[in-house]
Amino acid sequence: MRADGRDAASLRDIKIVRNYIKHAEGSVLVSFGDTKVICTASVEASVPPFLRGKGSGWVTAEYSMLPRATHSRSPREAVKGKIGGRTHEIQRLIGRSLRAVTDLTLLGERSVLVDCDVIQADGGTRTASITGAYVALADALRGLVTEGAIEAIPLRESVAAVSVGIVNGEVLLDLNYLEDSSAEVDMNFVMTSSERFVEVQGTAELEPFTVSQMDELRNMAMRGIRQLIAIQNEVLAE
Amino acid sequence: MRADGRDAASLRDIKIVRNYIKHAEGSVLVSFGDTKVICTASVEASVPPFLRGKGSGWVTAEYSMLPRATHSRSPREAVKGKIGGRTHEIQRLIGRSLRAVTDLTLLGERSVLVDCDVIQADGGTRTASITGAYVALADALRGLVTEGAIEAIPLRESVAAVSVGIVNGEVLLDLNYLEDSSAEVDMNFVMTSSERFVEVQGTAELEPFTVSQMDELRNMAMRGIRQLIAIQNEVLAE
Amino acid sequence: MRADGRDAASLRDIKIVRNYIKHAEGSVLVSFGDTKVICTASVEASVPPFLRGKGSGWVTAEYSMLPRATHSRSPREAVKGKIGGRTHEIQRLIGRSLRAVTDLTLLGERSVLVDCDVIQADGGTRTASITGAYVALADALRGLVTEGAIEAIPLRESVAAVSVGIVNGEVLLDLNYLEDSSAEVDMNFVMTSSERFVEVQGTAELEPFTVSQMDELRNMAMRGIRQLIAIQNEVLAE
Amino acid sequence: MRADGRDAASLRDIKIVRNYIKHAEGSVLVSFGDTKVICTASVEASVPPFLRGKGSGWVTAEYSMLPRATHSRSPREAVKGKIGGRTHEIQRLIGRSLRAVTDLTLLGERSVLVDCDVIQADGGTRTASITGAYVALADALRGLVTEGAIEAIPLRESVAAVSVGIVNGEVLLDLNYLEDSSAEVDMNFVMTSSERFVEVQGTAELEPFTVSQMDELRNMAMRGIRQLIAIQNEVLAE
Amino acid sequence: MRADGRDAASLRDIKIVRNYIKHAEGSVLVSFGDTKVICTASVEASVPPFLRGKGSGWVTAEYSMLPRATHSRSPREAVKGKIGGRTHEIQRLIGRSLRAVTDLTLLGERSVLVDCDVIQADGGTRTASITGAYVALADALRGLVTEGAIEAIPLRESVAAVSVGIVNGEVLLDLNYLEDSSAEVDMNFVMTSSERFVEVQGTAELEPFTVSQMDELRNMAMRGIRQLIAIQNEVLAE
Amino acid sequence: MRADGRDAASLRDIKIVRNYIKHAEGSVLVSFGDTKVICTASVEASVPPFLRGKGSGWVTAEYSMLPRATHSRSPREAVKGKIGGRTHEIQRLIGRSLRAVTDLTLLGERSVLVDCDVIQADGGTRTASITGAYVALADALRGLVTEGAIEAIPLRESVAAVSVGIVNGEVLLDLNYLEDSSAEVDMNFVMTSSERFVEVQGTAELEPFTVSQMDELRNMAMRGIRQLIAIQNEVLAE
Repeated sequence: MRADGRDAASLRDIKIVRNYIKHAEGSVLVSFGDTKVICTASVEASVPPFLRGKGSGWVTAEYSMLPRATHSRSPREAVKGKIGGRTHEIQRLIGRSLRAVTDLTLLGERSVLVDCDVIQADGGTRTASITGAYVALADALRGLVTEGAIEAIPLRESVAAVSVGIVNGEVLLDLNYLEDSSAEVDMNFVMTSSERFVEVQGTAELEPFTVSQMDELRNMAMRGIRQLIAIQNEVLAE
Repeated sequence: MRADGRDAASLRDIKIVRNYIKHAEGSVLVSFGDTKVICTASVEASVPPFLRGKGSGWVTAEYSMLPRATHSRSPREAVKGKIGGRTHEIQRLIGRSLRAVTDLTLLGERSVLVDCDVIQADGGTRTASITGAYVALADALRGLVTEGAIEAIPLRESVAAVSVGIVNGEVLLDLNYLEDSSAEVDMNFVMTSSERFVEVQGTAELEPFTVSQMDELRNMAMRGIRQLIAIQNEVLAE
Repeated sequence: MRADGRDAASLRDIKIVRNYIKHAEGSVLVSFGDTKVICTASVEASVPPFLRGKGSGWVTAEYSMLPRATHSRSPREAVKGKIGGRTHEIQRLIGRSLRAVTDLTLLGERSVLVDCDVIQADGGTRTASITGAYVALADALRGLVTEGAIEAIPLRESVAAVSVGIVNGEVLLDLNYLEDSSAEVDMNFVMTSSERFVEVQGTAELEPFTVSQMDELRNMAMRGIRQLIAIQNEVLAE
Repeated sequence: MRADGRDAASLRDIKIVRNYIKHAEGSVLVSFGDTKVICTASVEASVPPFLRGKGSGWVTAEYSMLPRATHSRSPREAVKGKIGGRTHEIQRLIGRSLRAVTDLTLLGERSVLVDCDVIQADGGTRTASITGAYVALADALRGLVTEGAIEAIPLRESVAAVSVGIVNGEVLLDLNYLEDSSAEVDMNFVMTSSERFVEVQGTAELEPFTVSQMDELRNMAMRGIRQLIAIQNEVLAE
Repeated sequence: MRADGRDAASLRDIKIVRNYIKHAEGSVLVSFGDTKVICTASVEASVPPFLRGKGSGWVTAEYSMLPRATHSRSPREAVKGKIGGRTHEIQRLIGRSLRAVTDLTLLGERSVLVDCDVIQADGGTRTASITGAYVALADALRGLVTEGAIEAIPLRESVAAVSVGIVNGEVLLDLNYLEDSSAEVDMNFVMTSSERFVEVQGTAELEPFTVSQMDELRNMAMRGIRQLIAIQNEVLAE
Repeated sequence: MRADGRDAASLRDIKIVRNYIKHAEGSVLVSFGDTKVICTASVEASVPPFLRGKGSGWVTAEYSMLPRATHSRSPREAVKGKIGGRTHEIQRLIGRSLRAVTDLTLLGERSVLVDCDVIQADGGTRTASITGAYVALADALRGLVTEGAIEAIPLRESVAAVSVGIVNGEVLLDLNYLEDSSAEVDMNFVMTSSERFVEVQGTAELEPFTVSQMDELRNMAMRGIRQLIAIQNEVLAE
């Protein structure tokens, strides 16, 4: 039994609220327990310079946390004048995850920029961001179909992400902040609905991990992501 | 009758939800119609260098908008690497407004930093921010009393703000984005519960304004702020 | 009687020297007592991106202080690598004030950039800047007429600015640094020759102010600006 | 047979030259084929603020590429004024890999900063950096023992890294630039001499990958890292 | 005969006005013809970190140009967010020139920061800056003696600077902007009153120069600097 | 006899290794004793904006030091977010030196960017950079001739540089770090094969220098540069 009453293999309470911000082409408020992220998908008519004239679209992401999303206040990156290494890592991860399931050629020469802004953080902000960003992206792409800009939604399959870790020797699913900060090992899996991996990132925070531990973490993550994809499907069917 | 059904002297639907972010000492979600701002008040044990050892506290503010709070997406200031002029103006205004009603000596050598993050913008983000920030500040200061750090809440009175403007020759209260972007004159008033002004800012966007127009704008703003202060009192009494 | 011998309703010694910098299309050295600002107006053949192809011109301003314009030396913004909030506020104010009296359509697709550089500061640098900038702008626009680029000077009326404040309970005109730093209330008025306001900014530095105090400040400012406009006219008639 | 004559499971020609830069406490030139990286380890007497007074040391890394290390010239990050996302990701990875095998408490309150500067790039710059950085770190720590600052070398085991990938459906070890840029899947493994993982990073560049592909990639990487660790041991025994 | 009526070996009209800015410990307006520079010397009670506790003072300089000091407007370095290479070169040169004649030990643990701000540029801004900065520095140091902080003015001798160049094959003294921009060779000499050199900088802009040309340039510069030092002495004797 | 066994008028051991980096159009590793610099010349198809459409090419340079090139580690300029004054000075010097011997019109509308990255520093990094950069530039230009882009190598003559200084009253050639840091006077000469000067920079670090000392320094530098040019010729003839 974990501090918040879950067993080792349970996700936190997962919620995805669609159409959360009225201006955006797609937008959700995603909650993994007390972790809450606003994901908005903005469609833009242009592509980055390296893609111009190549008939392909682009999907990218930016990630940020409100200063008081965290237990103690963190200074704004805008005030520091530069984006930190952790932010860079996470937003690149979100972008790659979304591109892996998008048919960029079908999208045509346009971009979707997904902003993931954490308003309250309690561990797993990057996995909640990817899981919510997929829904915001799907809504924005549906809108393009509705307005006749493209013929079909250019998504090959769906994608979601979850964290797993080893805490006090035990393998746990979907770590909250307290668990995460005492984890020996921390892994994030990004998997598609065809049960294939887009991203795998494992870090030994305190103690390197063995092949068999990696397999156990992977199995638990796969079970969690299957549930997240089911929730995405349910929400998108509303 | 205005586009959203209000008459000239009416506020939009005003909501202030307290305890919106679990980590912050004070936090609200304030809505002025479709304008929504998260205000968090963070108590810090130190003061800026120019106040060290002087027995006085400090209250300051930072302001930002999520990239897709606006109709079309605005680039992040963190990406541009610097904070723009408009942001500077607004956050300095919020800070001065809060300090005007705070007894900084009673606060003792500690700071309260209020973050106002606009998650959806529809005009009047600075006035909604000030009105919400006061409630978040009050909650954070109450917490200091509760935990015995200070004896009484160091607030002399309450403060709220509203915009007024001249649109097509007519004086209107609490402009939404559409009204604001076609206004000839735009004024913001920050007033305390003793009906005294902390800040007055008026700008002729298209056409300079006369003394009598300024008086009319002021009267309408004063009526609006009285209502906002009543709502603050109600919410804080819950 | 004030420390420098003036009575409450008097301006300091005002001087405007035209053609102060030989390269600029318009340039003045403006003095409000010991506050001295070099204002240069530079005509450029282009407009900002948001105005391209719209047949309208643009007037904007930049403001800075030499490091030792102030009593103790202030670090350069170029060394800090960013422009501070106060600078942003002031240069946006100067730009708006000048645009309010300029017919931007008559100006055609060109820009006038007015630089206000304070070489010695003793309070009221922003009001001196606006008052001097108008003269530099007028000279630059005259030059455009002389060289046949436009047919008439695209100025609808003239504009000047002054500060007023409450110091020890007394309403004073055109505060110097010593007065300004002990003022309870500080207001800046920007008014045109038709006695209409372009900008009104009032701040309670120590104590909020009442409606009747605001009226008294406004009356005194209006009298001061009438005198400043008379001086501008005189200088421009030389 | 690969373009450079290797079979799928072979490393490129690996060389580690010790004592390459005379000023540094530890320094190597590491080559993975045509990828060449200078790694220097600098011992500093202080630790970052979050560790001060806690009796623990710190190991961190910085990574950069000379502008013409790559096929076409890349602008310097110093000229752009900020460090890019890829650089951040890589230098954080190197730092975590080294800390995973270092006993920071035994190190005492001092830091080792390892700089990895790529002078010629041909794929695998991050894995070459980690493999070389370990040797530079070991040399710097030996120096601390030699001069009596610490009693034993505070390294629990050794660490090395290699890339693996799927190119045209085939699993390959230690990809060069040409292979890397056409890979469907790209994984980096960081493993210690006890055959435990410090970091695992896998990215589907074109096509998500299955569980069995991940296992195949992992097996090949483990074989490659065993050889790299043997080379490190050999070089350090000289 | 040159365009402005001088012969090859003549300085432009040189003026040094002392006590130009009321706040600064030393300040001058120096003119070399149409080149005008405000030099202020600010005394600060601290020294840079590398000198703390060593009983030595420091003299340094900053240099800047108002945006419209030049024929066409140059963007502010504060707006660009960084100081350019030319500015760096010049301010380092001014600082070294002043330190060469200052007895830093006699100065004690305090700094003098000399700001050279060009308000109008017509060639030779760096040599005018050095020549004026010396007088501002001397005044600031006199002030320290007057207030009893130090016993004697810690200046070993005086220093001034001039430019020389080869234009259309002819060696000219004190080039104005027009001459400077068409010069084949451009040299700046900084010399003390004992006729010794502090700095020599020569650049072949179009054509390398011979030993004998260098000697001719040097002789002419020495004659010019002797005159500048005479003017400094005269002004300081007032 | 100097600390490293040389007499006053001797160069250190000079080595220039061509084709050091495989990607660059020209590249050398140049050593002046323990000072080692990688110089790469990159040919680009464009010219800076101020040269576009004028039928002229451009040669420019960038300079940097690896953090641990120096005795104690220096922070990266990319981390500080800006390039320091010393770097600016040196890279401008290298660029001017190379342009002085290049026929930019013959080069056509293309640029050569020479990067000088110091991997180990022991005094004289700028003079080693210029001497090596010339060889890298020559190789890149030869490549353009070989591929038929231009008809002849657009170099009018060769160029090299050396430092001279006065240490303990004695004039020395090619100072190493130890000598340089205790020098009373430090001069750098850049001279072409026709024995004409491109750049002369002399600085009195401790004590101003006389005309006759300058002549002695110049003679010794000229002898040193003649030897460096002979080595360049030899290396380029291989």
